[in-house]
Amino acid sequence: MEIKVVKQIMEWNEDVSAQVRAELSSHNICLINVMGSPGAGKTSLTMKIIEALRDKYRIGVIEGDIAGQIDAETIKGMGIPCVQLQTQGACHIEAMSVQHMLPLFDLDGLDVLFVENIGNLVCPAEFDIGEDFRVALLSIPEGDDKVVKYPLMFSTCDGIVLHKYDMLPYFDFDDKRVEQDVLDCNPKASLFRVSSRTGEGLEAFLTWLDGKIAAKVKG
Amino acid sequence: MEIKVVKQIMEWNEDVSAQVRAELSSHNICLINVMGSPGAGKTSLTMKIIEALRDKYRIGVIEGDIAGQIDAETIKGMGIPCVQLQTQGACHIEAMSVQHMLPLFDLDGLDVLFVENIGNLVCPAEFDIGEDFRVALLSIPEGDDKVVKYPLMFSTCDGIVLHKYDMLPYFDFDDKRVEQDVLDCNPKASLFRVSSRTGEGLEAFLTWLDGKIAAKVKG
Repeated sequence: MEIKVVKQIMEWNEDVSAQVRAELSSHNICLINVMGSPGAGKTSLTMKIIEALRDKYRIGVIEGDIAGQIDAETIKGMGIPCVQLQTQGACHIEAMSVQHMLPLFDLDGLDVLFVENIGNLVCPAEFDIGEDFRVALLSIPEGDDKVVKYPLMFSTCDGIVLHKYDMLPYFDFDDKRVEQDVLDCNPKASLFRVSSRTGEGLEAFLTWLDGKIAAKVKG
Repeated sequence: MEIKVVKQIMEWNEDVSAQVRAELSSHNICLINVMGSPGAGKTSLTMKIIEALRDKYRIGVIEGDIAGQIDAETIKGMGIPCVQLQTQGACHIEAMSVQHMLPLFDLDGLDVLFVENIGNLVCPAEFDIGEDFRVALLSIPEGDDKVVKYPLMFSTCDGIVLHKYDMLPYFDFDDKRVEQDVLDCNPKASLFRVSSRTGEGLEAFLTWLDGKIAAKVKG
């Protein structure tokens, strides 16, 4: 019987992520892996980050999607170098994909590269893509049980954004419970309450992000 | 170099899904595969279905989660036979898992078995678990671009529930656009606008669901 292997070879990914990390470090580029559910607001938050930090850092974006290029067009419209990665059905981004896309950027002209991962709380968390750190979004409408239900995502990230925070009054979402769940599984993670729509909480998040980026870029 | 194969053998799944389908058919049980993003409201909708149809059909539930058993406890609290499947990190449910769980139910005492799949718009759509039909949820807060971004999920399902529809005034969500996207990729699918919280749109959805179940159970 023929055996079709349709997914992932993990060791190989580890080798390639080390190569990506080395190449980006040689250019002093900070790679940020942005993850979250479909519709958690990854693109909206990325746009707010770009607006706030584009005068300080030279920013590029890799937009990961299974199909289409809606988000890449949005980011390009801001005048930011952006490449769309279409995974053709795959549920996550691997280091090899990032490696293949680096030549499409002028690496000497970049300080920060954001990778907006596939909308998925599960698989992307398994793959080191060569990032310096991870930001995981959890939007209020998704519910307050997600840290417990998707432990790998929330235990491996450096920053957690409770996004669409302006929607709190309309949903049964206990953010103290989420805070405790994060403390239990990932006490080193920084937690932020943010609305990209109203701007609430953005400043604290951006200050943290700026500090993380500066440590790499100037280091 | 050792090669670790960490995911799926598709042909094997096809064999097993046929076995699951045959076993359930021999008991006149209808299997419904319920899918959607994390937090789309799969459990809330399942509870509304149970409330409405429990006097007509004998219902069982398989709750799929990566970790925990929050949802299974909720369903069991309604007095419904329910088994929690913990996938230990896996991003979808396979037919073999369903097959292994069937002996945990009294199959002669069931008409309908709901499988609440892992919260994920990508991977679950790839796997036939032996279902009679599929229901995909898309909640309003996720945004109106999801049918285009996650084409396999929305092109392989039989019914689509635009869930949390009472939240429409608070989000930039063009439901006419979604309707057109569904027509483009899956014109046979039935589309429903539903709020499990307010009850809006539930009746039309339940009428459709009842018809689909009756065709199997009485057929």
